Amino acid sequence: MTAAAKSRFDEQLLEVLRQIVGERVTTADAIREQHGKDESFHPSIPPDAVVFAHSTDEVSRVVTACAERGVPIVPFGTGTSLEGHVAALEGGVCIDVSQMNNVLAVNAEDLDCRVQPGVTRKQLNEYLRDTGLFFPIDPGADASLGGMTATRASGTNAVRYGTMRENVLSLEVVLADGRVIRTAKRSKKTSAGYDMTRLFVGSEGTLGVITEVTLRLYGIPEAMSAAVCSFPDLESAVNTVILTIQSGVPVARIELLDEVQMDACNKYSDLDYPVQPTLFFEFHGSERGVVEQVEQVEAIAGDFGASEFNWARKAEDRSKLWQARHDAYYAGIALRPGGKGIATDVCVPISRLAECILETKKDVVESGLIAPIVGHVGDGNFHLVIVVDPDDKDEMARAEALNERMVMRALAMDGTCTGEHGVGYGKIGFLEAEHGEALSVMRDIKRALDPGNIMNPGKIIRL
Amino acid sequence: MTAAAKSRFDEQLLEVLRQIVGERVTTADAIREQHGKDESFHPSIPPDAVVFAHSTDEVSRVVTACAERGVPIVPFGTGTSLEGHVAALEGGVCIDVSQMNNVLAVNAEDLDCRVQPGVTRKQLNEYLRDTGLFFPIDPGADASLGGMTATRASGTNAVRYGTMRENVLSLEVVLADGRVIRTAKRSKKTSAGYDMTRLFVGSEGTLGVITEVTLRLYGIPEAMSAAVCSFPDLESAVNTVILTIQSGVPVARIELLDEVQMDACNKYSDLDYPVQPTLFFEFHGSERGVVEQVEQVEAIAGDFGASEFNWARKAEDRSKLWQARHDAYYAGIALRPGGKGIATDVCVPISRLAECILETKKDVVESGLIAPIVGHVGDGNFHLVIVVDPDDKDEMARAEALNERMVMRALAMDGTCTGEHGVGYGKIGFLEAEHGEALSVMRDIKRALDPGNIMNPGKIIRL
Repeated sequence: MTAAAKSRFDEQLLEVLRQIVGERVTTADAIREQHGKDESFHPSIPPDAVVFAHSTDEVSRVVTACAERGVPIVPFGTGTSLEGHVAALEGGVCIDVSQMNNVLAVNAEDLDCRVQPGVTRKQLNEYLRDTGLFFPIDPGADASLGGMTATRASGTNAVRYGTMRENVLSLEVVLADGRVIRTAKRSKKTSAGYDMTRLFVGSEGTLGVITEVTLRLYGIPEAMSAAVCSFPDLESAVNTVILTIQSGVPVARIELLDEVQMDACNKYSDLDYPVQPTLFFEFHGSERGVVEQVEQVEAIAGDFGASEFNWARKAEDRSKLWQARHDAYYAGIALRPGGKGIATDVCVPISRLAECILETKKDVVESGLIAPIVGHVGDGNFHLVIVVDPDDKDEMARAEALNERMVMRALAMDGTCTGEHGVGYGKIGFLEAEHGEALSVMRDIKRALDPGNIMNPGKIIRL
Repeated sequence: MTAAAKSRFDEQLLEVLRQIVGERVTTADAIREQHGKDESFHPSIPPDAVVFAHSTDEVSRVVTACAERGVPIVPFGTGTSLEGHVAALEGGVCIDVSQMNNVLAVNAEDLDCRVQPGVTRKQLNEYLRDTGLFFPIDPGADASLGGMTATRASGTNAVRYGTMRENVLSLEVVLADGRVIRTAKRSKKTSAGYDMTRLFVGSEGTLGVITEVTLRLYGIPEAMSAAVCSFPDLESAVNTVILTIQSGVPVARIELLDEVQMDACNKYSDLDYPVQPTLFFEFHGSERGVVEQVEQVEAIAGDFGASEFNWARKAEDRSKLWQARHDAYYAGIALRPGGKGIATDVCVPISRLAECILETKKDVVESGLIAPIVGHVGDGNFHLVIVVDPDDKDEMARAEALNERMVMRALAMDGTCTGEHGVGYGKIGFLEAEHGEALSVMRDIKRALDPGNIMNPGKIIRL
């Protein structure tokens, strides 16, 4: 179905939407433009209208109205995705859930909570402050929890706490025909049928709109400690990571930044770290447990020629350190005024990580592009931020070629084309190479749950 | 479709199967009878024929031949399931994969391995013995890893290591039309499309036949220690569990056995534990870490009036202790010569666990049935083994009523009708109450992937 054939957005639908949400629907250019783009280089492709939903019932009624007319739906959280997830490729209605931002329940005894999809991770942790609990998944951006669920996000803490896959207990979802389902009860385990929760985690709005998320929480560790340490070369840093993971040290975060990225971070965040390949660590546990972890990791890093560990023991120092890490993407882009970022994102088995990173680094040097390396290397996951001028066709072609080589290298190493950013439409071309025949099963599921292809069409699956 | 209408097993198909697997297909009564039943009270419902497959290609060709004729397929591992999973409700061909029992790869550096579906958990751990690695999921029975995947099994270690859901990295699956897919690459994380791995974990052969499993492995902990301790009453034991979990102690196993079960275990395994509600613990970690965990748990248990901890520090003593726990099901059944077991299996949020267990216990006493309680209580999961004479209709009715009240109580507490045993056809009647509208999504998926309803028909989803 072509975009023109599908999108039948018109004044009549607009009137129906007004009956559902009153003044909270708009066709203003600036709002539409802002809702058609994310934080990447992908251009804005605006929806026909934006609805700011306040309840599951509103979402259900909006979806039903659109479904009756074959008009596409694009769910929107904070717009911090990176692969064109929110681009309205076939027009239609963007459902912005950012105002559905209430924490609905905190079950401290069960270590879980239930939130609306627009609650952001920082907002949740602020809310939890007096409970002794926290939600660990941290993709850097202050993303909405609905969006993090939809893209199966992870980030710096995943090496210890897992990704959204492991930390979503249950979802409420509005299906493509407006029906509302709950994917699971709140028990920690279940064998009661197909895993509907995991089906919607990572489905990027292509199977339904997430309207509630039940999440696992964790007790704030008795002790936390963070450190930075630099290495003579990239290989030594990566090998330190590999040995740390293989030794079973339950490190909470272990992040790699290459010398280009460190230079960018120093400039962006006014820091003076050595311009060398660097690891950022964080340790969580009991007082004794953290000491034990630190001893193990210092010994491993020392064997690979690491510098002394530069410690951040106080909460405010740790915050500063991690803010610098989280700003790495923006710091990278700032290396070139007016530049845009192409964030690559591969993940490989850790035994292949050193080879994968070193070959990628060589590729970057040969490409002549500015492309710092940064990664959640404890999971075998790393990124290049290729800083480009999107109007420079030659440069864009070289950047795309670099990305493609990186993806194909990862796939050849039994890795994935995207560890945590998701597919959107930016990575859609790689799924055939990654999944082969399994892609046809995804297509069967998409057709079964969204026969009219109105849910975020053109993302993950092309019908 | 009725059973008669569907199953078109005939001499011609038998001949085709012979061409595929030679002498490894049989219609002998004894073999068929054995393949139609599991370890529960459910009667044997034999398939028309049993095929002993040796390769993915054979499975694919057998499925293709059956699909062309609309003949049902029932995958079979070790037959240790408990809800009638392998009953050939509509006849057809049982594919026994127990001879596909090779460990295909151990990637020690990546902490993963790839096995054929007939490899059992004990066989895998025996194979891994010299690597310093182990696979922790332990449902008691020495089940096949394919079967454990298909039922989303868990068991005693899940409180620390998770269930099959968290520990399967990738699967090879033969679909209902004979196509072969791999659900994921081997990287630890991925956001590359729908989670096909988790869709097949727990699908009980209703969407395809699992022909390879890639599993996470773990380093054998530096220190392991196990202990038994008894309590004055059930409530004190359960509250010890709840507080241990809520305190974040990373206990590896924490199992509850009530006084009826302890009496059964003493008799069955020739032991002399006090006939009181009892917890079995296991602690994994560094030497210092285990000491720390033990101190915390002893303090909690002491506050609830526990006996001294009875320690099993040597590997052989731990084995003996856990063998007694694993034999609990058989010990329960042995309370009554000729009795059969109805194993119930609910899981609730841990804040509701004490209430759920105590109400269930009261119900058992009022029912007059023999039904010891045993459970993976760290996850909120527990079982009654109702020991019945299947020929006594009144008793069976009382047992069913007891099970139904237990399930409905768990659902009302936001729990599940099955924590780890799965649905089979024994629990199929509860899915509507548990999932509501979400069950229709499961049905849509079943129809999309198995339009002829030949894959283990009548399990999980009734079409």
